[in-house]
This record gives sequence, structure tokens and C-alpha cells, in this order.
Amino acid sequence: MGLVVQKYGGSSVADAEGIKRVARRIVDTKKGGHQVVVVVSAMGDTTDELIDLAEQVSPIPAGREFDMLLTAGERISMALLAMAIKNLGHEAQSFTGSQAGVITDSVHNKARIIDVTPGRIRTALDEGNIAIVAGFQGVSQDKKDITTLGRGGSDTTAVALAAALDAEVCEIYTDVDGVFTADPRVVKKARKMDWIAFEDMLELASSGSKVLLHRCVEYARRYNIPIHVRSSFSGLPGTWVSSERPAGLAQLTSRLAPHPASHPASQSASESASQGDSPVEQAIISGVSHDTSEAKITVVGVPDKPGEAATIFRAVADAEINIDMIVQNVSAAATALTDISFTLPKSEGHKAMEALTRAQKVIAFDSLRYDDQIGKISLVGAGMKTNPGVTATFFEALSNAGVNIELISTSEIRISVVTRADDVNPAVQAVHSAFGLDSDSDEAVVYGGTGR
Amino acid sequence: MGLVVQKYGGSSVADAEGIKRVARRIVDTKKGGHQVVVVVSAMGDTTDELIDLAEQVSPIPAGREFDMLLTAGERISMALLAMAIKNLGHEAQSFTGSQAGVITDSVHNKARIIDVTPGRIRTALDEGNIAIVAGFQGVSQDKKDITTLGRGGSDTTAVALAAALDAEVCEIYTDVDGVFTADPRVVKKARKMDWIAFEDMLELASSGSKVLLHRCVEYARRYNIPIHVRSSFSGLPGTWVSSERPAGLAQLTSRLAPHPASHPASQSASESASQGDSPVEQAIISGVSHDTSEAKITVVGVPDKPGEAATIFRAVADAEINIDMIVQNVSAAATALTDISFTLPKSEGHKAMEALTRAQKVIAFDSLRYDDQIGKISLVGAGMKTNPGVTATFFEALSNAGVNIELISTSEIRISVVTRADDVNPAVQAVHSAFGLDSDSDEAVVYGGTGR
Repeated sequence: MGLVVQKYGGSSVADAEGIKRVARRIVDTKKGGHQVVVVVSAMGDTTDELIDLAEQVSPIPAGREFDMLLTAGERISMALLAMAIKNLGHEAQSFTGSQAGVITDSVHNKARIIDVTPGRIRTALDEGNIAIVAGFQGVSQDKKDITTLGRGGSDTTAVALAAALDAEVCEIYTDVDGVFTADPRVVKKARKMDWIAFEDMLELASSGSKVLLHRCVEYARRYNIPIHVRSSFSGLPGTWVSSERPAGLAQLTSRLAPHPASHPASQSASESASQGDSPVEQAIISGVSHDTSEAKITVVGVPDKPGEAATIFRAVADAEINIDMIVQNVSAAATALTDISFTLPKSEGHKAMEALTRAQKVIAFDSLRYDDQIGKISLVGAGMKTNPGVTATFFEALSNAGVNIELISTSEIRISVVTRADDVNPAVQAVHSAFGLDSDSDEAVVYGGTGR
Repeated sequence: MGLVVQKYGGSSVADAEGIKRVARRIVDTKKGGHQVVVVVSAMGDTTDELIDLAEQVSPIPAGREFDMLLTAGERISMALLAMAIKNLGHEAQSFTGSQAGVITDSVHNKARIIDVTPGRIRTALDEGNIAIVAGFQGVSQDKKDITTLGRGGSDTTAVALAAALDAEVCEIYTDVDGVFTADPRVVKKARKMDWIAFEDMLELASSGSKVLLHRCVEYARRYNIPIHVRSSFSGLPGTWVSSERPAGLAQLTSRLAPHPASHPASQSASESASQGDSPVEQAIISGVSHDTSEAKITVVGVPDKPGEAATIFRAVADAEINIDMIVQNVSAAATALTDISFTLPKSEGHKAMEALTRAQKVIAFDSLRYDDQIGKISLVGAGMKTNPGVTATFFEALSNAGVNIELISTSEIRISVVTRADDVNPAVQAVHSAFGLDSDSDEAVVYGGTGR
């Protein structure tokens, strides 16, 4: 039996009972004959409490010290978890990010992993220990300072260790059952997928799914580490995220999608399902994701000549703002002026408006419009670009639900639209249903989707 | 101006306000032209909360993991303190025990410092930083595991760093004003001393004073590092603990003890005071300490022949119990049997009784008596052994207060008695008064004493 890396989030180890439950699960895995490396987050609200303390002593916490502070959280949970495992009669040792060999750059609060040198972990495993590793943290290569990996850091720690240790799987334990075809809080009939390809998961993560962050999935794809997202509460199988569908999952899928499609909208998808596990060149709808954390800025009356758009986005980039979708309308011939719209995180809206206002002296546009009452709906699935029927069905579904579309953007395996924020939930429900993804539909192709 | 090491205990940094207050004090020291190294304990009750969590997940927490857990406490306080200092416009960096070069043995939960290699601290100071160091923790020399130094560990960290960095003083900030001639909660007229010699402080620490632990004072004496114990709340000068009385303190002392003695009991002490700062060969009473944390075990009817006492104390030592006072009564000639009594921490009483009960098969004593309603009163002062009047006054004071003495033990500079626990407070008050230590007494010799 091989090596398994398991990651448990803060909600799984929120209190002593949670830690003991997680310890039993880990011991069960060990008893199954595996070597086990566990990556653990800080308990429950610990990180938020530490941030709150930091804000009380200093309005602008310093990067290096802030990382030193936050890493105390995982130190507590990992030590308690190791104790709980030892109390069950198994050997366990805990390791900080630094001790585990997680080497990062020096960008405090959002460091990137440069290298993983898990010599101490390997030794601990060879001596029969379960190794417990603090997620979210590392040590900088140049200064040997403690760093944190930023949002989703613990998942990335787990995948990076799995890659460095050549693990057979990286299990991400969380408080949901897996990756769903849509957010179950919005779509009651959303289905848990048993498998989704790395590429589709990347698109879902980019377009609003919160289960796994883009960064972690990208790391897993690069090193081809299968991820198994599952619940630490239920113990049921969750969703596999990997390059190819695991062989053992075929039967389950055919049981879930036994009938040929009769509904036009789901035709291409169900064809693929009925043909088995080789979805090459077929449109496979993974799921529907949504995101209401963005705002839209429209730059009105931009002179329609080369270089104006570049100047606008340079101004935004100089303010270190990441933008998402960009749309430029066709120029009104009479005026030689055009409008440029883009979306960005609401949290950066104020900064972007300031940067653009300053840039107005150079660009000479008419005005700026800021709109934070928008939402984004995305349909993700392999091969949809070559299946025109998918796009048509998507827009028909939105139209039938009375949803007006403000912006459109597409990739090889994703189509996204911006709508009014109020329209997001009915839009997601309509699209989910139109593609036969609802859990009581015989036509479903349960290959992918989005989590909560 | 030289380098100052400051240590702040958990009560000084119990909350964000406390941390900000401590930060201001540190910055003031820096502004005074000093290089500053700060050793900090965990905030308020943090350590107790972590211990409570550990007990919830495992009844017998493992040493290595327990240390990993507890060290999270100082990590939080040191990072917050560094942030608070930076917020005041000064540069600060925090360092774990490991980063600060505190190298220990591998005895988890009560590691001993083997070496201190403060290269990173020196660099941080040279770059103009205030260095904040986690107290109570280190890293083991052989396994590179995180260790904790046990009770009083943060004070020891501070003194060890002061020695390694050749500091001019180690300031121990606490929640009392300094070292007192007796516990102020018992003796209302107890005086704060301005200075006490290392040797007297060691005796006070051994006999019940809680202000500084024996271990920390012993370390300071070995490397001749002056300690200044003072309040982090009042900002007033506290008590210096050093090999010789600092020159600047002479005036203060002569002001406190201006008159020749008239009371016989304090004669030898006041003679010394009136002769200035050279107390050689004179009895200088430092103070009165007491301890109610011990119990007494009496082994009744021990055969009075060579080797029996050794067998008894070997049995106790094998159970890893530290004993304090030992008294063997004169053998009753008629029976050739004797009684042996000793005192030990109450917390180890059960273990000792078990060990002795097992040993009864070998030693053949009659019975064991266990008594945890005892107290110990000690008088500490240089040169008292050569001044018979001191001992006489001590026993007269106890007699006048109606206190019965159960055991007596003496050293060069200390005399201790065991009494009923109920007699401790009146005994301490009587002795304190008899030696003219009361703060409204003209006869006082304020050279030493015991803390809270």
C-alpha cells in the first residue's frame, strides 16, 4: 500500500471532539496499511481571532510578524492532533512547515512554494510514525523567516507534500461532501460528482467554486497528483480530481447516467456518457458555477484609437489589481468613441476607481461607471467550444428564465456571463436544469460540477 | 550605552492594551540609547488554555508534542509585541527560541539550556532592530525538536541571552514592585529591597519566594549578570540582584536605615548598616520567606543501623521525587529504633508514599505518617551562622508568638523551621518585626528579603 496525504481544514478540527474524530480517521487509514502524512489547518476561528488581536495592536500589521503570529494557529492544531493519535496507541510526530521542508520565497502573507525537501517527514514515516504537518506555512529560502502561503495555503501544502513524497493520492477533507454540479445552497438538486478532470476543476475554481482553489489544483495538475475531496464528517467517498477518470469509478457513473438522452440540451453530454469513459471531442458538462464577489467598471467614451485600452489597463495593473473579464463594445462610427467594461473583485473597486480617475488626464475618456450589483454565471465542460449546441442551450435557458446578459466571455471549456446580482440564483438553476444536471433527471452526465 | 535584556511576564502582556503599554516602555528604553532585546512570555492565561486543550484530547500528553503546543503561546505574544513596536515607528523583529539560538538538551517539558548562539539576534540589533525573543523555549541539540524549559523558563531565557550577548543588565518585569523583605500579602509592613546579593536571593528562592526562581538566579550568578526585578505597571525602580551592591544605590539605603539599633534583636543587622556598604562578616538579614506547598512524611520505627536511611532515600529518589529538609531523631536507646522525617512537594506526596510502602518489605520500619498541614518559615541573611544572636532572636520571636517548631534546618545564610500551616502567617509577621524589618521601624536593615 502506498503513501496517502490527508488534509483537514479548520472546521474539521474546530474543537477537541473534532480533533479526536479526525485522529480516529487517520488511525483507520494507517491501519489500512498506508503510510500517512496529515496536513492540518488552524482550529476553527483561531486565525480570525489572531488577526483580530493583530488589528488591536497595529492597524497595519507587518508582513514578517503577521506570518509569525498566524503560524501559531497550525502549531496548536497539529500538536493536539499528534497527541490525540498517540492516545489511540499509534506513533505520531508533528512538524512545522519549516521542519517539513516547505521552502518558499520571501513574500510574506502570500508566499509561493519554491521547493519541498521532506527529509524529516520521510524519516518519521520510515520509523513507523504518522507525520502531522502544519498547513499554510513555510520558511523563506533566503532569510530563513517564517512565511505563510495565503488563501488556500493548507490545500497547497498538502498537494506539494504529496508531490514531493510521490503519494498515491492527496485527500482533502472538508465540511462538504465533494464537488457539486452547482452550489447546493442555490440548486437543491445539485449532484455530487464522483470525478472531475483537472482542467474543468481549474475553470470552476476560477469562476466561483470555493471547494478547491485554482492554485492548489494547478499544482496537482503539474505534478499529476490525484486529489480526493471528501467530507471529514460523513466518511463517504467524495469527488476525485485527476487527469483521467479512475478505473474503479466507471460502474458508479454508468449507474447514475443509464439512459440515452432525449432532451436536446443534454444530447452531446449524454452521448458521451453512454459511450463509456472516453469523452474525447465530446462536450461533457461538468457543472455550473457562480460568483457574486465581483464588481464591474465601465470606462465610457474612450477615444477609439490604438493604445487607449493599453493605457487604461496599465493604470489598473500599476495599482496591482487583478481584473477578470474584459469587454470592449464596437465603436459608434459617428463619434469614434467606444466603451470598455471589465470586472474585478469588489474589494479592489475603490482602488481601481482612484487609479482610473488619475489616468483620466492622460486618456481623456468621458466618465467612469461603477456597478457592484452584478453576478457571474459560468458553465464548465470539456469540448464545449466545438459543440455549438451547448452555447445555444445556455443562452436559451437564461432567456427563458428572463435573465438579461450584460457581458459574455468564453474559453475552450467555459462560457461565462455577467448579469444583475438578483438574477444569479434563477440563472444558475435554469442552466443546471437545462443541461440535465438535476439529481432527479435520468439524462444527467455526472462528470463534473461546482462545489459550494 | 550598552545592551539591555528585558523580560515581560504573561500578566504584563495579558491583552492588546498590555502589549501596547509594554511596547511603549521598550521604545522608551531604545530611545534612551540602548540596544534592546526583549524576552516575552505567553499572554495571560494562554498556556493554561493550551494545557486544558491538551488534556481534552489526551490524558497523558506526549512530551515532544506538548512542547510544540505550548510554544505557540509565546509565538503569538512576540509577534504582536513586534507589531505594536513597529506601529510606534521603531523597527522590531521577533524570533523563536530556535531562531534566537537557544540550544537545549532533549528533555521535553523541562529542557536545560546547553548553549546560546544568538547570531541572528546580534545581526538584528546591528541593523537597528529591537529583537523580541520567545521565552520558555528552545531547540534540542541532537534532534532539532522544539523544547520548553519548564517552570520559570522565560526568566532563564532572558538571563541566558543576557549572558550570551554580554548585556549590562537583565530586567525582569513582573506584576510586583520588586523583591520584598517578606510576602506583602502576609506582612503588611514588608519593604521592597533596593538590592539583594545573588546568594541571599538563591536562599529566598529555595525557601518559598516566588519572584525569581532558583534556576534563573543561579544562571545569573554563574555569568555575573545583574538582574533588575521591577514592575511593568508602575515604572518605578525595583530590586537589583547582583554580586555587589550597585554604587548608585548607597544613598537610598543609608536613608532607610539611619539610626543605630536600640532593639537587641536587630543589633547585629543594624551595626552593619551603620557601617556602610561593607557587610563582610556581619549578619545582614535579607528577609523572611515562607512556603506552604510542602508536606511532611515521617518514617516511624526505622532500625537504627547503618544503611537504613540510605535505603529509604534511594527508594524516594528512584521515584524521581525531590525532597527538601531531612531530620533524623536521636535513637531511643531502649528500642534501637529511630524516626526519620522529611519534607517534599505536596504534589509528589502520593508517589512517595507508594514508593515507601513498597520499600517496607526491605527496610522493615513500623509505619508511615503523612502530614500536609505544615508550613516552612525561613530567615535569610549573609553571615548569620557566625552570629549566634540571630538564631536566638529567631526562636524567641517564634516562641513569643506561640508557634511550635517541628523541624529545624540551617545553612550558612539561612535558618528554616517547619510549623503547623496555621502558624505560618503569625510566625512570619513575628520574625519580620523582631528583626526590625517592618517599614515603619527605624532599625531596619533593608538589604534583602522575599517577594510576593
